[in-house]
Amino acid sequence: MNTNRQWVLAKRPHGMVTKDNFEYRESPIPEPGEGQVLLRNLYLSFDPTQRGWMEDRESYLPPVQIGEVMRAGAVAQVAESRNPEFSKGDLVQTTGGWQDFVVVTPGAGWPGVSKIPEGVAPTMPLGVLGVTGLTAYWGLLDLGQPKAGETVLVSGAAGATGSVAGQIARIKGCRVVGIAGGPEKCQWLKDVARFDDVIDYKNENVDQRIAELCPNKVDVFFDNVGGDILEAALNHINMRARVVLCGGISAYNATEPQPGPKNLMNLVIMRARMEGFIVIDYMDRSHIAIPELMGWVQSGELVYKEDVQEGFENIPDTLNRLFTGKNLGKQILKIADPA
Amino acid sequence: MNTNRQWVLAKRPHGMVTKDNFEYRESPIPEPGEGQVLLRNLYLSFDPTQRGWMEDRESYLPPVQIGEVMRAGAVAQVAESRNPEFSKGDLVQTTGGWQDFVVVTPGAGWPGVSKIPEGVAPTMPLGVLGVTGLTAYWGLLDLGQPKAGETVLVSGAAGATGSVAGQIARIKGCRVVGIAGGPEKCQWLKDVARFDDVIDYKNENVDQRIAELCPNKVDVFFDNVGGDILEAALNHINMRARVVLCGGISAYNATEPQPGPKNLMNLVIMRARMEGFIVIDYMDRSHIAIPELMGWVQSGELVYKEDVQEGFENIPDTLNRLFTGKNLGKQILKIADPA
Repeated sequence: MNTNRQWVLAKRPHGMVTKDNFEYRESPIPEPGEGQVLLRNLYLSFDPTQRGWMEDRESYLPPVQIGEVMRAGAVAQVAESRNPEFSKGDLVQTTGGWQDFVVVTPGAGWPGVSKIPEGVAPTMPLGVLGVTGLTAYWGLLDLGQPKAGETVLVSGAAGATGSVAGQIARIKGCRVVGIAGGPEKCQWLKDVARFDDVIDYKNENVDQRIAELCPNKVDVFFDNVGGDILEAALNHINMRARVVLCGGISAYNATEPQPGPKNLMNLVIMRARMEGFIVIDYMDRSHIAIPELMGWVQSGELVYKEDVQEGFENIPDTLNRLFTGKNLGKQILKIADPA
Repeated sequence: MNTNRQWVLAKRPHGMVTKDNFEYRESPIPEPGEGQVLLRNLYLSFDPTQRGWMEDRESYLPPVQIGEVMRAGAVAQVAESRNPEFSKGDLVQTTGGWQDFVVVTPGAGWPGVSKIPEGVAPTMPLGVLGVTGLTAYWGLLDLGQPKAGETVLVSGAAGATGSVAGQIARIKGCRVVGIAGGPEKCQWLKDVARFDDVIDYKNENVDQRIAELCPNKVDVFFDNVGGDILEAALNHINMRARVVLCGGISAYNATEPQPGPKNLMNLVIMRARMEGFIVIDYMDRSHIAIPELMGWVQSGELVYKEDVQEGFENIPDTLNRLFTGKNLGKQILKIADPA
């Protein structure tokens, strides 16, 4: 292989993303300079927030520019090193993008690159020990502040973040109710992830089911969805509830801005809080979170599921699996096996 | 006078309140039992939240029942005392309701009754030293946590709560921008209450003016209005902004629930917080707040304005002044002068 396959952003989406938003390109494999490493991407991470990066608007990261390789987290392997800290064959985590190869400069800021410790499965740094797991950990614990005996409701519960958030709440002694779409996801949440109860939003009345399954009301709502689900949850918040705004996937592909919940005044009546966060702010505390997450995985208290697609040509379509609800757990695409 | 004039709730409103929602009634003056006092209401307090008490729905206080005297805060005078702590002629603060006379039992919980200290003007316990002043104080300081140099935006800024919240922010060293309706209110806010800048939402583009007047973005938004004003403010929040949800007067008379802001995701991008509160929760800390508010009034740093209507027959219409924006400052109605 002597070309670098790439998917670049060709035009900004209006509504759902299609393959037309990207353009396939082949470039020469870049050469690392002094202090740099050449990485070969093995696994790409797909996250709902990537949809926002495609929009031309101010956000927590600059937009991906037209003609630029689509940004994405990746697990990669060092193909060539001109940096003494890295050796050929090392597995690393970086923002590799939708391409085979990328050159990065360790220790020079964005994009960061960090070695994956021994004993960690190569996909874990994209999910349970990566951005989605850390999002669940900090969002739930720092903002949600769940106390044993409280009721925690999670939307997008079968996703990479929601499934971890709900399980951490269970580990902390809370009653955990998840909202997910379809019987397969709901069954996995109950049987494998051991949520106390699950609401299938595709087949049940969410508002009514929250009332039934949360008789003591909702102390923490960890929301990945927004829209009607957020409104339904706000109908059932407890006094001094914490609404953790993690994401709003229901509106990410909307062609017009979507109206917010009609019942925000419940935050007043219930003296409740709604708060947003971005996991990037917590990255300097990963040395606290990752060992704890790893410990729970090793003890079996925390399970995770990955949906691993394959094929470089399928990269654009794989992003849409997040928005059509096809993925159960962390959405990944494998470009190559480790050498 | 040997009758007790009363306005009772006759039917629940749908949309704006009209006189038809109430019924005028004359009852015998009640007689105080052992330990009780008979109070004569002098001044009634009108507050936007009273509109919510007329609805048959769960809230932070039970609804006023059909046939029940409309609930309202009042300054009253002891007309007859069978309680050793109170003497005829004492001025007190209580939840007197829309009537001439009420019997209360001091020390027996709801409705509370407390003496007004010497040197306090009789209307102050309804406004700047009462529920609205305390709402401003605790909402701004406890939830908003303004720091010197930050920008504080206040909606409903010419109201009894907003005007005090903005001035406390100014006292704390913040840049303060108020949103109010019409040139008279705006001029008072700039010239008398010494807000740094004011936006007239009836004559200006609020979103654009916030951008112009808050070049460092909004660190604290103290919101009494909700709706479009809240949405406009959310477009301009700073990192880690605090949105203090005090009220949402724009929707209190809506016949259908109103959609929420389309840009709640800005809370995520800006790691911001939106939080509701009810001043009742802070009443046991009034000994901290009231002396500080009183000190600011006495030093001239904190000014307040009262809109004092008169006439028992005008009570129902006076409530509507809050919703048509006729009041500048605290809305009060005088039933009688102190004896």
